[in-house]
Amino acid sequence: MATVESVKDLRTPALIIDLDKARRNAEGMLERFHNLGVQLRPHMKTHKTLECADIMTGGSRRCIVVSTLAEASFYADNGYDDILYAYPLPFDKVESCAELSERLSLFHVVVDNRLALQELKKRPLKQGKIWDTSGVELTGIYAHCGNTYACQGEEQIKAVARETTMITLQFMEKLKAAGIHGTKSSIGSTPSCSHPVPDMAMLSEVHPGNYIFYDVQQSLIGSCRLEDVAVRVLTRVIGHYPHRNQLLVDCGWAALTHDGGGRLPTGYAIIEGHPELKLLSMTQEHGRVEPISGKLDFKQFPLGSLLTLMPYHACATAMMHPVYFVHSKGKIIDTWKPTRGW
Amino acid sequence: MATVESVKDLRTPALIIDLDKARRNAEGMLERFHNLGVQLRPHMKTHKTLECADIMTGGSRRCIVVSTLAEASFYADNGYDDILYAYPLPFDKVESCAELSERLSLFHVVVDNRLALQELKKRPLKQGKIWDTSGVELTGIYAHCGNTYACQGEEQIKAVARETTMITLQFMEKLKAAGIHGTKSSIGSTPSCSHPVPDMAMLSEVHPGNYIFYDVQQSLIGSCRLEDVAVRVLTRVIGHYPHRNQLLVDCGWAALTHDGGGRLPTGYAIIEGHPELKLLSMTQEHGRVEPISGKLDFKQFPLGSLLTLMPYHACATAMMHPVYFVHSKGKIIDTWKPTRGW
Repeated sequence: MATVESVKDLRTPALIIDLDKARRNAEGMLERFHNLGVQLRPHMKTHKTLECADIMTGGSRRCIVVSTLAEASFYADNGYDDILYAYPLPFDKVESCAELSERLSLFHVVVDNRLALQELKKRPLKQGKIWDTSGVELTGIYAHCGNTYACQGEEQIKAVARETTMITLQFMEKLKAAGIHGTKSSIGSTPSCSHPVPDMAMLSEVHPGNYIFYDVQQSLIGSCRLEDVAVRVLTRVIGHYPHRNQLLVDCGWAALTHDGGGRLPTGYAIIEGHPELKLLSMTQEHGRVEPISGKLDFKQFPLGSLLTLMPYHACATAMMHPVYFVHSKGKIIDTWKPTRGW
Repeated sequence: MATVESVKDLRTPALIIDLDKARRNAEGMLERFHNLGVQLRPHMKTHKTLECADIMTGGSRRCIVVSTLAEASFYADNGYDDILYAYPLPFDKVESCAELSERLSLFHVVVDNRLALQELKKRPLKQGKIWDTSGVELTGIYAHCGNTYACQGEEQIKAVARETTMITLQFMEKLKAAGIHGTKSSIGSTPSCSHPVPDMAMLSEVHPGNYIFYDVQQSLIGSCRLEDVAVRVLTRVIGHYPHRNQLLVDCGWAALTHDGGGRLPTGYAIIEGHPELKLLSMTQEHGRVEPISGKLDFKQFPLGSLLTLMPYHACATAMMHPVYFVHSKGKIIDTWKPTRGW
């Protein structure tokens, strides 16, 4: 494909990222936790790119969370350090974790049972690293308040954030009572970190991720406004079917995913500027669009014309794309390539 | 990751393909339509690899269907020809289609309206190609009996196949009556081509695709037996949660997709050898497994042990993987890399 200057000229379907919005989302989060005196450790799983990681860490390239070893290696290979692999230690991956621990100045693994601790101890680290010399060191406690995803509105989010913070801090007290000092505490989730409660200042770290893009789901939870969503799937009208009162568009589940299950009043996505339309269903490469009620005015949507979809779940939609097109005010300024696999 | 010899040693989650089953599925389809005297034009969208294409075309590397221009270019770049792009011609892709038509000995596009025909005529072909010298030539009629996906069992499938064949052949008669001769006719869908009716011998071509892998959905429709399914996602137990009566596994929607919506009695997949288990829900990288009824015997599923998931929809699951691990009787013999994007 020839290089294009404007999003309007992109081959569709295409994932486009509004860089100004993504930066604003990232800077807002950095500022929020800078003000609270809490370390932000952003999660990479939503985007899996170097460019977003750079923006989210404010250029430090330190202190990130990853969800796969593929991400861990990708960031380690590209100069990132202080990486937390937020996953109950999988035994088949102990050797890879040990190698990353030896390569990096800090690589954190998560265990949630005694057997995992035994597996770690079976593989002592080289180069005088800590889990070589004194067994295994407990660095901190990692909790994810995934229950914020059932919230509606700021007050409900804050109640969950307050409860998670309280439980985490109570656990820290128990550790101290058992003679274990100096451990860190970290909680996560984009909703709670978008509306932090004052108690969160007592935590060491937070680890949200989705906020770089946000999405329709986050706007419904109350984490953001719809206008903060930085990611879209661009699609074109490729068919008029008056006998079905439907448009066909060139975005199927291969470009959007079935995530969200079509539960929105507008179906599987919000069609920007067209609250009267619904993305009813998709096959691999086709989407069926119809009006929520009444007859479709096909003249408004000529064959070849563009529609812009706001995804229900940005993590799932981004995962479907081997390249993201990055724009500022509609002008393409970059393409980003995420890492994939495990 | 070090090269491994056995599927048991793969880093999970991993997509594994049983080469013997895939070959058997492909050879069965080739034989079925060879016997009927009908050209098989296999669809590439399920796998998007060169290796499967080679098996499905019986080594001829001719006569395939693709769902994206990325696939079209991928196969054209690798010596494939006679490619049908089965998509209502998207106007932004006319130039790319023209280039493929000029490069290949045969590249077929699909139009379903007059405007698309006008768009084609605006871009005459070079090198004495047909849509250069005499406008546009109608090569054939392409119909997809997607309604077979609502069938249960061979008899229902055959009824749909018979109806689709009849309607298509009646349309051919109308073309002849209008003085248009020599056009081909092609119908598709894995269910109808897995159980062809004798009338299908009057068609020129068929274009199924999923049959190379098959999946749980196809077995429920009646296209295949469950033991014909050639694709699995391998996952490991990474957590025991007795208070929830659940296992945690390292396969989330990033490796399986939410496709199918969890509608199976066993949830989002069938866990091979464990009809008593259900894949209840998934996050991006985690799956929650619980017994369909009663208490889970955790001793049967030690941390680190393998489970094998049969996907509901192979096309959607394969799409999530940048590499497929190919085995024969559990021994890894190859890795295949699909093309992605549009």
